[in-house]
Amino acid sequence: MIRIGIINVTGYAGAELARLLYNHPEASVVSVTGRSEVGKKLAEVFPHLACYDLTVAPELGSVDFVFSALPHAASAEACAPLVRAGIPLVDLSVDFRWRDAQMYAEWYKHAHPAPDLLPSAAYGLTELNREAVRSAKLVANPGCYPESVLPALAPAVKAGIISPEIIVDSKSGVSGAGRGLALNLQFGEAAESVSAYGLDGHFHWPEIVQELAAMWPPSEAPEPERPKVTFTPHLIPMTRGILSTCYAPLVPGQVPGGEAAKEAVRDLYKEAYAGEAFIRVVDTSPATKQTRGTNMCLVYPTVDVRSERLVVVSVLDNLVKGAAGQAIQNMNAMMGLPETMGLDMPAVYP
Amino acid sequence: MIRIGIINVTGYAGAELARLLYNHPEASVVSVTGRSEVGKKLAEVFPHLACYDLTVAPELGSVDFVFSALPHAASAEACAPLVRAGIPLVDLSVDFRWRDAQMYAEWYKHAHPAPDLLPSAAYGLTELNREAVRSAKLVANPGCYPESVLPALAPAVKAGIISPEIIVDSKSGVSGAGRGLALNLQFGEAAESVSAYGLDGHFHWPEIVQELAAMWPPSEAPEPERPKVTFTPHLIPMTRGILSTCYAPLVPGQVPGGEAAKEAVRDLYKEAYAGEAFIRVVDTSPATKQTRGTNMCLVYPTVDVRSERLVVVSVLDNLVKGAAGQAIQNMNAMMGLPETMGLDMPAVYP
Amino acid sequence: MIRIGIINVTGYAGAELARLLYNHPEASVVSVTGRSEVGKKLAEVFPHLACYDLTVAPELGSVDFVFSALPHAASAEACAPLVRAGIPLVDLSVDFRWRDAQMYAEWYKHAHPAPDLLPSAAYGLTELNREAVRSAKLVANPGCYPESVLPALAPAVKAGIISPEIIVDSKSGVSGAGRGLALNLQFGEAAESVSAYGLDGHFHWPEIVQELAAMWPPSEAPEPERPKVTFTPHLIPMTRGILSTCYAPLVPGQVPGGEAAKEAVRDLYKEAYAGEAFIRVVDTSPATKQTRGTNMCLVYPTVDVRSERLVVVSVLDNLVKGAAGQAIQNMNAMMGLPETMGLDMPAVYP
Amino acid sequence: MIRIGIINVTGYAGAELARLLYNHPEASVVSVTGRSEVGKKLAEVFPHLACYDLTVAPELGSVDFVFSALPHAASAEACAPLVRAGIPLVDLSVDFRWRDAQMYAEWYKHAHPAPDLLPSAAYGLTELNREAVRSAKLVANPGCYPESVLPALAPAVKAGIISPEIIVDSKSGVSGAGRGLALNLQFGEAAESVSAYGLDGHFHWPEIVQELAAMWPPSEAPEPERPKVTFTPHLIPMTRGILSTCYAPLVPGQVPGGEAAKEAVRDLYKEAYAGEAFIRVVDTSPATKQTRGTNMCLVYPTVDVRSERLVVVSVLDNLVKGAAGQAIQNMNAMMGLPETMGLDMPAVYP
Repeated sequence: MIRIGIINVTGYAGAELARLLYNHPEASVVSVTGRSEVGKKLAEVFPHLACYDLTVAPELGSVDFVFSALPHAASAEACAPLVRAGIPLVDLSVDFRWRDAQMYAEWYKHAHPAPDLLPSAAYGLTELNREAVRSAKLVANPGCYPESVLPALAPAVKAGIISPEIIVDSKSGVSGAGRGLALNLQFGEAAESVSAYGLDGHFHWPEIVQELAAMWPPSEAPEPERPKVTFTPHLIPMTRGILSTCYAPLVPGQVPGGEAAKEAVRDLYKEAYAGEAFIRVVDTSPATKQTRGTNMCLVYPTVDVRSERLVVVSVLDNLVKGAAGQAIQNMNAMMGLPETMGLDMPAVYP
Repeated sequence: MIRIGIINVTGYAGAELARLLYNHPEASVVSVTGRSEVGKKLAEVFPHLACYDLTVAPELGSVDFVFSALPHAASAEACAPLVRAGIPLVDLSVDFRWRDAQMYAEWYKHAHPAPDLLPSAAYGLTELNREAVRSAKLVANPGCYPESVLPALAPAVKAGIISPEIIVDSKSGVSGAGRGLALNLQFGEAAESVSAYGLDGHFHWPEIVQELAAMWPPSEAPEPERPKVTFTPHLIPMTRGILSTCYAPLVPGQVPGGEAAKEAVRDLYKEAYAGEAFIRVVDTSPATKQTRGTNMCLVYPTVDVRSERLVVVSVLDNLVKGAAGQAIQNMNAMMGLPETMGLDMPAVYP
Repeated sequence: MIRIGIINVTGYAGAELARLLYNHPEASVVSVTGRSEVGKKLAEVFPHLACYDLTVAPELGSVDFVFSALPHAASAEACAPLVRAGIPLVDLSVDFRWRDAQMYAEWYKHAHPAPDLLPSAAYGLTELNREAVRSAKLVANPGCYPESVLPALAPAVKAGIISPEIIVDSKSGVSGAGRGLALNLQFGEAAESVSAYGLDGHFHWPEIVQELAAMWPPSEAPEPERPKVTFTPHLIPMTRGILSTCYAPLVPGQVPGGEAAKEAVRDLYKEAYAGEAFIRVVDTSPATKQTRGTNMCLVYPTVDVRSERLVVVSVLDNLVKGAAGQAIQNMNAMMGLPETMGLDMPAVYP
Repeated sequence: MIRIGIINVTGYAGAELARLLYNHPEASVVSVTGRSEVGKKLAEVFPHLACYDLTVAPELGSVDFVFSALPHAASAEACAPLVRAGIPLVDLSVDFRWRDAQMYAEWYKHAHPAPDLLPSAAYGLTELNREAVRSAKLVANPGCYPESVLPALAPAVKAGIISPEIIVDSKSGVSGAGRGLALNLQFGEAAESVSAYGLDGHFHWPEIVQELAAMWPPSEAPEPERPKVTFTPHLIPMTRGILSTCYAPLVPGQVPGGEAAKEAVRDLYKEAYAGEAFIRVVDTSPATKQTRGTNMCLVYPTVDVRSERLVVVSVLDNLVKGAAGQAIQNMNAMMGLPETMGLDMPAVYP
């Protein structure tokens, strides 16, 4: 059994790691840390985790594999010594996602805590970066929004059928904002309401741009400022789930005209994800509820024939495929296990 | 007192008309019809309307003004004789919104029931079409989505600051789908879930395009295929409210570059809606809950400076400003009353 | 116009007072105070109150009537000088509800701030205490739970048809817990969940017992320990609304046996509330949504014929009939205005 | 592998059986029937069950074990031939729960379809009836409400500490009402609302009374009309979960007085459920969300010391411990497998 440590189990992502790993046949959570709840039994902090007999500790004990669910900066600081000690690790924060430490410094107004580790970090959207993940010791788990956006656009980008004028309109449940207290997350405020946020810039935007740029076909490599992505996240009154609606103009002549365009892009996507266990191309518009509690991402590509635009809708559970499940999938890949191990289960529906 | 008749009071829009008119100082609901509940007391169908002593009748009695809340086709059939008899009327269906009876026939697969009345019908988005509404006897009340989209784009279109590559991503509560039974509207299905629909074409798309095209500046009149609008509605787990996020590229040189663009478009919008009681340009991203139960539309225009796109977020209550409240505002305008009469109230928040 | 001051407008009850008073024909809110938001415009704190041009002040200005929406103890301290200065006032806190200052001291672990004012305070459940309210200068507005429980039990108690073994099981939306931040009120925690609380004693229990005891028929006056009330509040995933289900054994022989018992108690209740504008006895089991945004309390009395128990279900909006609406009704009664003034409106349904 | 057949997989209980059995190590769903969706792939009816390659058939194929999720009457008719053929079966309907066929005939206004099978049916609340379940070929799975009520009362009844004046106030999410369409289950009606129903008699009442009566201590055997249970179910705005609050007077002298009573009953309950995997006695008031998606029932017994009443709160997921999970636990017990097999997992929280 792989002895697992979870740094900062007391947030939603940390708790979800513990939930999902409980039934993993080859891994066992043996050590958990927290910041606010040190000394408490895990069952006291999270009654749904009463199946564990663990105490929230200030530091990890002896482990074979680590997940860090700390916020940015704190996470890199906690992970760096472990990575340097050779412990394989998946970090769920933003810290090792951006390849450019300078951009990190500008965005967060402080230096990156461990820029030397960036070159060795693999971006852990397994389906799009499998080989790198398999050989990495440090994996940067994707942000929940990029996790929903990149699979929705990758096949079209790689096939060269869209031009880089991209609009991403995402809708997320409140758990994406974490377990911290905030007025706009109180039930009385969030229920029966929807709002856009991050309109002046959301920290998942650079991640989306970086990864899209890297997959853009070389022959028409985007200029420095391209792809031109506008990304607008919205807070909607539900607990789990992200739906992203992605829009881009079709490159003329790359797909058939009229209604046939729809089937053509559907086929393109189905071929791209053939054999993938956790990304499924669907034939009808999906709902987030169909992925609740599971590591599945459903992708529905179609075409607005009147405006000749690609429209792709994707859905996932932000705490699973958008965080803890994706992280375990990465661990499986890093440790030479089947990616689906411990993650193959139907959604909790309704 | 204006004696009001409501055709098909038994849907959500009809009931909302009755709710809002209850306190109107110059109007009184005296006659209501329904299809499924004829013979029942209104209080039996809708316990919250127990303040009325009215029976759902098969036909209207003697009235001075009519609102029709019937579905399309049925509405035109019911309204036509009344309009021809000179009774002023606001129709909440799609029937008198499109100027093109041929398009209606193609879209709905049957002929328009009263094409002769189309030329005299005014499109009832009062703030954008005030003079026509004031002098009309027949007003086509806007669809709930266009009601949220057109005020969000009109000032930019009229000022010529955007090019016509428009994306509209709308999020609606379930009451927009009406009071009829449907599996996807059952609580167990709709709660904790979000989905896109109408991806093959929604009947509010032609309305949005028609009205945008009409307001496009003549000097750069859109070609037959323009404005190119992609419109995607989404169903989100709440009862009332629509939020529309609208995207369009800025025409180079029309607004200042960088952060200054935001203030420039904000000023443009504030000037456009100065003096309007029911459209308010706000300085922070709004939430639908801030309009709950009222006739207010909040508009938040901003700029994504990285991609040089206009982004406008608008929110309203789909049953009030998106239906019954807008209809009463139109009645006020048609009858020479202050538009705010009976509609001036704060939102029911939280 | 009565110039109104609201102390602590920044909570949900305070904001709801402002919302409801906006259209009151004889009253006008001219001064509002807060604790955390002093100096801000009311519209900044509450965008739905943008119709007001008021600034949150540290102290009230010159006013004719005051509502206090402060928490307990702070409220009595703020109200006492105003009451002594002769300003009519409705206090929404618990401070002037209990007639026994000693019990207050025991329950809250500190002395009552103004015990001398208790004898002159009227308990403001208008329908059950109308004469006292009309002649009072200081009215203690009922707690939201007692407001739903007392009308549900009063007719049966007064008629002597139940024995005093009473169970009250109440279900409340989250706004009853106020606008303060709390983990269990975050959307992610409260949504899709229900829990009981206050099982070791809730501060609305003494209020319920005090008022029930006072209305018990003298001939069978309850002993010191009676009526024996168990009160269990529950938190349910909605914003507004309380439903209370009240159970008590029928006194043998006081109502007909079998199914006839149901009609008998229904008739008893209808007679008790004949002529009341805001308490309506209904013939079918009501839903809280039927009262949303309004001052209505719906009461459904019935009999469990198998166990010979009275069962009464009552519903109301905790922020209106359970707080701000009831307070305005009291103000109307105190100022010689019709009780319904400014409060006569249908519920916002759905 | 046990080959499993599910009769009527197209309701929520049937689909939940398929979800939970997917990972059962010793059972495999091989045949599913439906009524409305015959001929469709299971994945088409339920996208979250796309992991299955099964078609909804009109009749079961060859199987080793059957679950029936049909409505009453239809279920007994479908099960009877299978039971007579010796196939072990768990029926989730009411049909084999009541021992009295005459009561069934009176309640449902038609004769029981297979009264001869009633004597051999075991009531499948495993923890309270383990031996009978283990040796049965036909198990009647409990109703979702009784499943939450009986574990909450059984230890107190068996210990003789309560008298039989019992009030049960239950709160259920909407999925308990099934997947059929109903106006009161539409999101727009059910959201932000709560209501009581079944006030004239709910079909889970006889089940609760039958089982409580059977466990009542013989020395003080309830008279024919006892225990006197009033049961009131409520519909609350969430999808899954039941919370039952149970009230009964303490028999004087059976538990210590004052605060010590709380610990005494807690200890009594902990002893009663020591070693149970799926009933856990908890030390703080539980929330339904803590059981979401799992087979766990949390029980919180306490005492209202002022009124000397036992108050027990229990929570579970109505589709798991209240239906499909309990059914699988019964199958495990009937087939000689560990009861927890396939059911040991943490709740999906938040």
